[in-house]
Amino acid sequence: MSSNKIVLAFDVYGTLFDTSSVINTVRKFVQDDQTAKSVVSSWRTFQLEYTWRLNSMGLYESFDEVTRKALINAFGAQGIKLENPQIEELMASYTDLTCFPDAIAAIKAISSKEGITALVFSNGTEKSVGKILDGSPLQQYSNILKRPLVVADSVRKFKPAPEIYQHLLKEADLEKTPEKCWVVSGNPFDVVGARKSGLNSVWVDRSGTGWIDQLGEPTKVIRSLEELSAIFTEA
Amino acid sequence: MSSNKIVLAFDVYGTLFDTSSVINTVRKFVQDDQTAKSVVSSWRTFQLEYTWRLNSMGLYESFDEVTRKALINAFGAQGIKLENPQIEELMASYTDLTCFPDAIAAIKAISSKEGITALVFSNGTEKSVGKILDGSPLQQYSNILKRPLVVADSVRKFKPAPEIYQHLLKEADLEKTPEKCWVVSGNPFDVVGARKSGLNSVWVDRSGTGWIDQLGEPTKVIRSLEELSAIFTEA
Repeated sequence: MSSNKIVLAFDVYGTLFDTSSVINTVRKFVQDDQTAKSVVSSWRTFQLEYTWRLNSMGLYESFDEVTRKALINAFGAQGIKLENPQIEELMASYTDLTCFPDAIAAIKAISSKEGITALVFSNGTEKSVGKILDGSPLQQYSNILKRPLVVADSVRKFKPAPEIYQHLLKEADLEKTPEKCWVVSGNPFDVVGARKSGLNSVWVDRSGTGWIDQLGEPTKVIRSLEELSAIFTEA
Repeated sequence: MSSNKIVLAFDVYGTLFDTSSVINTVRKFVQDDQTAKSVVSSWRTFQLEYTWRLNSMGLYESFDEVTRKALINAFGAQGIKLENPQIEELMASYTDLTCFPDAIAAIKAISSKEGITALVFSNGTEKSVGKILDGSPLQQYSNILKRPLVVADSVRKFKPAPEIYQHLLKEADLEKTPEKCWVVSGNPFDVVGARKSGLNSVWVDRSGTGWIDQLGEPTKVIRSLEELSAIFTEA
């Protein structure tokens, strides 16, 4: 990969795909919509909490295992104990997430740009992220949105550990020019982690709350991935 | 410290002291009780998130700084930008937390036990934790609840990093018999962290939800600190 190129590394969960799209499956196992929303939200919260706690303890489990444990914890917090077939059905819904519409537009726009390479950059396992991508409209852009996926399994740490961004830079052949690698993410912890490791980052602020995280700042903020390619007009 | 002794290491925030007791001060800066509750809850959530993200990134800031940033983030999430005097007033409320009534009973009960040593074991700074203890009814038991405080500042990592539990074992002179050191905590991440480092742990389940965390298990579960001394009757 030529080092005069810009590399855009797209986060998957919460950036290209909507983690809250599991709600229809969650809804089958709870009493009401309010509880379903609460479970979906805490499933994601525990998932991230577990990744950071594992990082903190110097331990590692695959993201699939973390997602499964977070699921059990999220339902458990509502006093609901899941049976194995229910867990399997819910886990399957996590590999069938809805692609954000602006993600498709963004990848399409990038396809016409010279000098920009797009990569998938996720905490997820190669198998699960592959399944999500293959089952989505993004599959038609698999020649643009490149694999191999850059995943946590390679370094046995989760974002925002420096090792994962260093691994990304190595994959992108940008170890000497990390500022040419831009992490595109809807997750503030990922945005901050990238910047602390010397990369640039774009934060996708879909809810329009503005940046409030206090551990660092993104290089650029956009409201939708459709605004992404305009940032790199001179790339 | 003789190695045939049991050491009880008491967590501070959420175990001896109630972090939600800042609500009266928070209430002054928000519209209604619901918002106040939400801010108090997310203040604590961001505080923990920041400690784990800093651990993950290999970075460190004092717990006071983390608490301040989490505070700004929690109000920011409600669209409220705080002025400096407001921040100072809220931060002051965090060193004036309410002592859980069962904590006083527990320390009193331990005072009559042979072979048990009690230590303060916190992420907090020596200054802030000292202020909380000095302003509380626990002050009268300062001969039982020992300092020096075992704090994150010593190792520049937060719980549940192994280094912080190793530091505790060193302070307690129990490096060769970590199972004699019991972390007493209301926080599952602390309970699990202690166990992963070879210590024992008691989880204080004040809300009675039962253990649902999926990363590990406590050695013992109690509903109130008043049940604590009964665990160590044969100590």
